[in-house]
This record gives sequence, C-alpha cells and structure tokens, in this order.
Amino acid sequence: MSAAGPRVGILGGGQLGRMMALAGYPLGLRFRVFDPSVDACAGQLAEHFRHRFDESAALEKFSEGLSTATYEWENVPVEAARVVAERVPFFFPSIAALEMAQDRLTQKNFLRSAGVGTAPFEGVASPDELAAASGRIGYPAVLKTRRLGYDGKGQCVLRGPGELVDSWKAVGGAASVLEGFVRFDRELSIVAARSRSGEMAFYPLAENEHVQGILRVSKVIPGGALQTAAEQLARAILEKLDYVGVLTLELFEQGGKLLVNELATRVHNSGHWTMDGAETSQFENHLRAGLGLPLGSTAVTKSIAMVNLIGSVPEPAEVLKVPGARLHLYGKAPAKGRKLGHINVPLEQLERVLSIPGVR
Amino acid sequence: MSAAGPRVGILGGGQLGRMMALAGYPLGLRFRVFDPSVDACAGQLAEHFRHRFDESAALEKFSEGLSTATYEWENVPVEAARVVAERVPFFFPSIAALEMAQDRLTQKNFLRSAGVGTAPFEGVASPDELAAASGRIGYPAVLKTRRLGYDGKGQCVLRGPGELVDSWKAVGGAASVLEGFVRFDRELSIVAARSRSGEMAFYPLAENEHVQGILRVSKVIPGGALQTAAEQLARAILEKLDYVGVLTLELFEQGGKLLVNELATRVHNSGHWTMDGAETSQFENHLRAGLGLPLGSTAVTKSIAMVNLIGSVPEPAEVLKVPGARLHLYGKAPAKGRKLGHINVPLEQLERVLSIPGVR
Repeated sequence: MSAAGPRVGILGGGQLGRMMALAGYPLGLRFRVFDPSVDACAGQLAEHFRHRFDESAALEKFSEGLSTATYEWENVPVEAARVVAERVPFFFPSIAALEMAQDRLTQKNFLRSAGVGTAPFEGVASPDELAAASGRIGYPAVLKTRRLGYDGKGQCVLRGPGELVDSWKAVGGAASVLEGFVRFDRELSIVAARSRSGEMAFYPLAENEHVQGILRVSKVIPGGALQTAAEQLARAILEKLDYVGVLTLELFEQGGKLLVNELATRVHNSGHWTMDGAETSQFENHLRAGLGLPLGSTAVTKSIAMVNLIGSVPEPAEVLKVPGARLHLYGKAPAKGRKLGHINVPLEQLERVLSIPGVR
Repeated sequence: MSAAGPRVGILGGGQLGRMMALAGYPLGLRFRVFDPSVDACAGQLAEHFRHRFDESAALEKFSEGLSTATYEWENVPVEAARVVAERVPFFFPSIAALEMAQDRLTQKNFLRSAGVGTAPFEGVASPDELAAASGRIGYPAVLKTRRLGYDGKGQCVLRGPGELVDSWKAVGGAASVLEGFVRFDRELSIVAARSRSGEMAFYPLAENEHVQGILRVSKVIPGGALQTAAEQLARAILEKLDYVGVLTLELFEQGGKLLVNELATRVHNSGHWTMDGAETSQFENHLRAGLGLPLGSTAVTKSIAMVNLIGSVPEPAEVLKVPGARLHLYGKAPAKGRKLGHINVPLEQLERVLSIPGVR
C-alpha cells in the first residue's frame, strides 16, 4: 500500500503556502507549490515547480496527481488557476471568488450586492470620471487601482480637487476605484472558514495596527456585539459565494458599526495569531475545509498578539527567552518592507517583544 | 543577503526527524536528512540524501554547509555519525553518548556509575555465562541483546533453568545482558533537555502503556515526589555526559521508587504529547539545545494523552471531529507493527478516540 496521503497543490510559494504546508503535513498531506521565484520560501519544505504562471504545460504537469489545489496569493493569474482547476478533482476557493477578489470594483459591487456595508465608492477609468466621482464622494477620498494592490500599494489619498491630477498619475492612470475616506475608530478583521459540507467557523475579531500600509500588530479582541456583527457579514459572504476555504474580511469600526474595507479569499496575515492562540490554526482549517474534513475549533486558547517582522529579523535568542513568545520565521532574504516572519506573544509580553532590536 | 538560516542535518529520516523538521522550520532553520530508505518520511519535507550509512563520500557531502547535525535514530552507525561529527561545527548528542546508548551493557554500566538505580544485570556472551548469571540473578529474568533492540525486539523472558537453551537461541547467540525481572507498578518516562550553555529543562513524567513491546498510550501524570526523583536521575545523567539535546529515561515505578530501564539519547515517542500539551515541544527543545538557543518552557498547557497509531490509520475525519483531538500522521505506508502516526487527545476524550476503528 502506498504511503502517499492526498497531495495538495498550492499556487504561490510564499510564507502563506509555507505555513499551510507546515499545518498540513501532520494530517498526512503532501505538498507541491507553483511559484516562479527561486527563493519561494515554501519550496524549502515542499516540492517546488519553478515556472512562470503563463507556462500552461508546467501548470498541467503541476496538476498531475493532485487531490486538490488552492492558492496562497490573491494575484495569481486567473488563467493559471483555471488551468489547474480544470485538471484537479477539487480547486478552492473557487475561480469565481478569485476573479471577484482580484478586481476592487467587482469586489465592492459584490459586497454591495451581499448587503454588506462599505465606504461609498465609484469606478473611475479616466481623469474626467475621477473628477466627477470626487464631486459626488467628496474629500478626503482614497483612489485605489482596481488590480494588484496590496499592503497599501497602488493607492493614494485625495484631500481636495487640487490633487486630482497628481492622484491620477499616482495610480499610473490605471482603472481605479474612488472610495470615501473612512474616519475609523479601529481597523479589525475576521477570519472565517467554510467547508465543502457547508460547515462554517469564525475566529474572534483581531484589531490591526498598520504602519505605512503594512500590518504591524494584530491583537485578538473580546467577543460581543461586534463579533456577532462581523460573523453575520462573513456568513452572508461565504454563503453567497458558496465558498470553500478560509476567507478574511478587513473591517473598519466606526461608532460601533462595521464597514468592510476589503476581502481576501485566503488565509491572512491578521490570522497568524491562530497558530499559537487558537485550538486550530487558520492554515489547518483552510485545508480541512478544502478536503471536506470537519473544521477544527476556533476557540482562543490564550490571549496573544501577533507582531510582524518587516525588513529585519531580531536575534532568535532574544525572542525565545521571552516567556511564551513563539517565533515564526519564513526563511526569506531580508529586504526593505518585506515580511520576514512574525512573533506570537502573550499580551503581557507585547511591549517587551516590541523593544527587541530588529523587531522595529 | 542570503535567505538561508542555519542548516541542520539529521541522521535518519523517520518520523522523529520529520517532526523535528516541522518544529524547526518556524525557527528559520533548513533541514537535510540522511536515510537509505526511499520512503524515509522526513524526506517529504526536507532535502533527502538517500545513501547507505557506510557510504563515506555521501556522508561527507551531506555534511557540507551544515551548521549542526543530530540524529533521530539510536542505531545510526557510530562510524557514520563520526564522519559527520568531524565535519560540522557542532554535532549533538555527542558520539560518546550515542556509543554508550547503543550497547545495553555499556549503558547499564554507565547508569550504575552515575549512581542511578537499575534492575540487577550482568553481561553474558555464551551459554555458560548465561547459566552462571541466571544463578545469581534468579528467575524470572529478561535476556536482551546488547545491540539493536527496540520496541521489544531482541529480548525474551526466562522463567526457569529449563528455558536457558531456548532463550539463548531467541537472542541468536548474540552478546546480551541478563536483567532481573522488575515487577513494576507502572512504566514511566521523563524527557529532559540540556543546552550547549548547560541550561536544563524537564518535562513532566508520562505514564506509558505498552502492547507487545510497543508504546501504545502515554499520559502525563501529576508532579510531586516522583517528578522530583525523576528529574534528579535525569540531571545526574545529563551532567555526567555533558549532554546536549533531548534525552529520555524509561523508568519502572516500584513501590514509590524509580529504576531506570533504558535511556534514549534522542527525542522519544513518549514525549509526543508535548507537541500539543506543553508550551514547547520536545522537538523544538532538542533543536534549541543544539543551537545554543534558550530552552522553551516545558510547562503543561492541557491534560492530554498520546495514542500511537500502529499498523493502521483511522479515517482522519473520525479523529478530527473529536473535540481537541490533534492528528499527527507520518506519511508512511501501513505495515504490521509499524508506527504510522499518533493522536494527542484531551484525557476526557481518550476512550472515545480509542474506540475509533483503525485506532486499535
């Protein structure tokens, strides 16, 4: 009899794929990642197909023998995902969800159709449309490219009509979305999972602090009315998409109400705390969802915060001597603004961890 | 700048190496295993050198670029370990410890010299020596080969002088140790770690149930006088060996006293509960010890039992729907008597897990 458990393919071989594989090996799974980069850090611990996403033959070969496939990067070209999805027994989250998520305007329209609150928005495809939309939405507003934005890239704030020209340049004249600027009290996120059987699970809300558009710290916040509201939003979206896998909603809290800022059809940086602070990690639940296994409990096991390591990494010994601190390095080469790892730390040790050289 | 964290070599590529690698990737480490078997399950997630242990050139190549090396199998040939140890900056646990552990007689003599209580024993190298030793040790007694015994292999019980001839045949006439039979109340074990700086850490005692010589269930037991006594034994041994890494003592409890049955100079099956029930797993602490990093807390986070999966594996869904159950499959082909995985489970769910088809 063969030793081979189900083999899972992952489009993208970055840290999210890496952590997915680490969560999946104990379930007896095997992993194969597709990523053009020689440095793809998931390739250190999984079979690595190093090809461009437009190499169909490589994608076809990649698909051979997979039980299921998923992606860890929201900008994986839909055409590449489709080649794989057509060849494996099950692909998740669906191509339709991926396609929707990749286009901010389509995404916003979807959220509106799902009855989910968002900032006011309009699609703009020319300077004239931008000027007209600004008139309706008012100032300040945020201009974001429809495609390929992440970690604050491809967006700029418009403070008044004098900035129309510059902002259009800032987005490179690309088709964009103009959104009303939300004066939020807090940035929150909820990570949710839905399995092939329709079972759903919701992690508690995390409060997120960004620095220059990049997530810096996430803290789990106590449940209550906000949690209920966030789960309702997530449930509506999961069901409307007949979604399978983990999905994340980035939220603004404003006067006790929640608006959806953005949705990610994947595991998410703001859910990394689940690796050490929840009964089951987001990575394991994403895999369980796609394999039709029962979802694991999302209950919190300890109060922790997640601190991203961006651009530099501290001495591991300095982190590991902090009581309860858990280090997660991604095996990536340091570079400015690059996410190199994170630390999950008990709340009472957060300040100590933040003071370690190399942590910020 | 390179992305490469320290690269760790592991002699042996079975499940212990696999779980060591899974524990080490989040520390930014990379792994390379040496194992002649094409099926070595650690090879699914690490670089795999597939060569015999007597291939020196392969061992030399394996050693290149390693920051440190260790082993996951107590019967790795000492000569092979020496080739690697001479070529890497640090090798742990030491060759001396490995050599001692591989020979039951040397091991027993070492334990005696460390002032540690054991059953009475004598080395026997011929039928005459066996007969003479039986006269002194009495019956029942246990005859064990000096080398290559594990999981109850290479041993038999002598109930009286009429069994002398058959027992000598049973061990194949190999140099052996005759031990007094211990009427123990319980089989226990303690997993301990000592780092390069001399820092030590001790996990709580586990109570172990064996079936046909193979570990079946381990349960963490409450501390107290026994724990203190076990830590004293472990400390004496760690210090006498100037040991680095994780070491395990298999113990007999007899009338409130502890005797050492056997020691293992490695991570151990009876410590697998630490993966889900301790602040830091035995695998992570073994690596931390060898890398000179601070040891992690060995505190218990929840009361769990470990159930081995031997020869067959249950449906994953059946396990995963048990609240709090954590499945650990090794990616190995099923075979009679083979360890294929384990389940860590809250004590109150133990009976339920034991009743799942395929679990026993």
